[in-house]
Amino acid sequence: MQGSVGNAIDEANREVVRRLTEPDVTWRGVRAALDVIPGMKPNLVLHSGPPVGWAAMAAVQQQAVIGAALFEGLADDEESARSAIERGEIEIAPCHDLGAVGAMAGATSASMAVIVVENDEFGNRAFCKVVERALQFGQFDDGVFENLRWLVDVLGPALHTAVEHLGGVRLVPLISRALHMGDECHNRNVAATALLLRTLAPALAEVAEGKDLPGIFRYFEEIDQAFLGFAMATAKALTDAANGVAGSSVVTTMARNGVEFGIKVSGLGDRWLTGPAQVIEGAFMPGHGPEDATPDQGDSAIVETVGLGAMAMANALTAGAISGGTARDAIARTRDNMQIAAGRSRSFTVPVLDFEGTPVGIDVRAVVRTGILPTILTGIAGCRPPWGRIGAGVVRPPMEPFVAALRGLDEALRDHDGG
Amino acid sequence: MQGSVGNAIDEANREVVRRLTEPDVTWRGVRAALDVIPGMKPNLVLHSGPPVGWAAMAAVQQQAVIGAALFEGLADDEESARSAIERGEIEIAPCHDLGAVGAMAGATSASMAVIVVENDEFGNRAFCKVVERALQFGQFDDGVFENLRWLVDVLGPALHTAVEHLGGVRLVPLISRALHMGDECHNRNVAATALLLRTLAPALAEVAEGKDLPGIFRYFEEIDQAFLGFAMATAKALTDAANGVAGSSVVTTMARNGVEFGIKVSGLGDRWLTGPAQVIEGAFMPGHGPEDATPDQGDSAIVETVGLGAMAMANALTAGAISGGTARDAIARTRDNMQIAAGRSRSFTVPVLDFEGTPVGIDVRAVVRTGILPTILTGIAGCRPPWGRIGAGVVRPPMEPFVAALRGLDEALRDHDGG
Repeated sequence: MQGSVGNAIDEANREVVRRLTEPDVTWRGVRAALDVIPGMKPNLVLHSGPPVGWAAMAAVQQQAVIGAALFEGLADDEESARSAIERGEIEIAPCHDLGAVGAMAGATSASMAVIVVENDEFGNRAFCKVVERALQFGQFDDGVFENLRWLVDVLGPALHTAVEHLGGVRLVPLISRALHMGDECHNRNVAATALLLRTLAPALAEVAEGKDLPGIFRYFEEIDQAFLGFAMATAKALTDAANGVAGSSVVTTMARNGVEFGIKVSGLGDRWLTGPAQVIEGAFMPGHGPEDATPDQGDSAIVETVGLGAMAMANALTAGAISGGTARDAIARTRDNMQIAAGRSRSFTVPVLDFEGTPVGIDVRAVVRTGILPTILTGIAGCRPPWGRIGAGVVRPPMEPFVAALRGLDEALRDHDGG
Repeated sequence: MQGSVGNAIDEANREVVRRLTEPDVTWRGVRAALDVIPGMKPNLVLHSGPPVGWAAMAAVQQQAVIGAALFEGLADDEESARSAIERGEIEIAPCHDLGAVGAMAGATSASMAVIVVENDEFGNRAFCKVVERALQFGQFDDGVFENLRWLVDVLGPALHTAVEHLGGVRLVPLISRALHMGDECHNRNVAATALLLRTLAPALAEVAEGKDLPGIFRYFEEIDQAFLGFAMATAKALTDAANGVAGSSVVTTMARNGVEFGIKVSGLGDRWLTGPAQVIEGAFMPGHGPEDATPDQGDSAIVETVGLGAMAMANALTAGAISGGTARDAIARTRDNMQIAAGRSRSFTVPVLDFEGTPVGIDVRAVVRTGILPTILTGIAGCRPPWGRIGAGVVRPPMEPFVAALRGLDEALRDHDGG
């Protein structure tokens, strides 16, 4: 792919990078999934990552899907949920196929509260479940279901009314600011969460009095990662608009289901290219180690696709320290990723590199040429009961999907030229 | 000062550094100055910096003192306020002499709302006016007075009740965290402000319903520097407890009134050592330049005394960029200050230097020996109507007080040895 072909790819990539970095994304509200996600159905449970059949699904993701089915009242107990899924009465599908993203197991069902965002330039909407910390790691019980109901009955409507009152909240500038406050917006979202609360608090106090305001504020106080759902939805709104540019070799989706790692490449449209989900190099919680971990899982890697997460690691030296790295290591990680990126973010910049933009637009050509795989930050889910979050760390994708993508682009170009 | 004398000084300095870095400081409430500041009087107006007579006072500080007198109803108009001050009917005194600190002009009068904090180890209290952005820069009118009244009538009581509800708020850990989020807690306090709001919001929602909750939240949303008063009070509570250690050559106060720059040194107790206030190297707001600026002013340099502000500049690369510096410059500034510091903070650390502590305990011996003067971040006040904030920048103290302090310590030691 040299000469004029290479130039055509470069030009397509420039447009993809522009779409990944230029539009703003506005938070519009919080709604039950069934009311807003096109294609959502009462008997459908969404999961993270590329498509996967029930039998092949990672145990923790199965567990989360069962929990969602029980939450919806689609089955009376785990066993009957399992057989209803096997019979196809309860359906499963990737979040990504419906314009949504889900952290970790990603289990999202009809009545759950989802964040609704909109791409200001392209008008497309994206959705991500309001952050909760149990079901997405395969855990559920009455307390978990009660919390999920509180999210949709109390938190969701209060946030929705507040956001409408504000006429929407612009998310890209908020993320830009959080990036200058020690966040990379994947494993570390505390600044973004605090900034979001600061933006919302006056409106919440005006419109949500008498609606468990203390509980709503406690949600944002207790969950440092509350913003992750907003960061993911923002990235999804940008990447969906950037997908489908003919000839582009830029990655527009990275997603994992605990079994497979999948990418989409703009020039190949909605086609998934996959390889085996990798083991995470992580900092484990006491009493846990790699042998307890589900391999790489979750749609959250969508944030790396737009220049956040590991791409912005040099901004989150505190997060780096958690996994034992030095400041130099974290800065090197951002620099490494620059070698495989088609561009730099205009919105997300790195103070310690004198405000250079973060790497954005992973170019499959550069990945295959240099052998450098993008780095991704991630949480780690247990692989057996009692499930739950057992750590956090860094992972790289397998090389296979990048090679397959390059081959696919090559074929597409040949078809175009020859046919 | 070598040999055993040097060792005795080093030992005294270690204790001072310990007192500057080890105790926690707890926010206890917000009260009217008269109700909590020992020695406060209805006809007394406090000002920033070392003592200064009315005639010699910087014009902007006179203006702020007049504004405070009018706010208290001590005079009917500016002219009568001026003559009441000249006749001594309205008294003036430095904030520092009453255990308080005040940003910029520092004008603090009896009915104004002050933050009350307590040193957990030593039990001493310190006070700083709740941040407002007009009178401290010499500006006042009906709107300014209305806001000052809102601070004492609405914001203050709501915060006080919320803090009591929480059993106090620990400020050192909050500052530690903000330092890992791009703040240095002098010119940049946005993370600390957001974290404080996040901590307070649930309690405020519980105890302050019906008390202009939206307005209270808007205060924290609109004022990125709202936390500065808390940072200053924290530093004052630490430095007061660190002052008066016999033989110590460590600076425990830096304060400026726009005419003079004054320091206190632990081994010299409450004695002020002064030199001329310096001109600030700054980033000016459009239409303003150095010729419009009041020289260095305010008690806020107390934060540099405990390892914040310019001492933590390497943490606030975004703040550095505002004044045109590179990341390297900001990191160099922190390193420069390490050369004149007796120790490193245990509480305040620098991610980009792999979590080394910020420099703390400015040693007058090291300042005189190296010729390196500590750097201080600061706001810039206009020097004539319409007054107000015209920029922000960096300033260094004059050398004179450091030389005088060294001479004073020398004399004290000689008196001790010989007398």
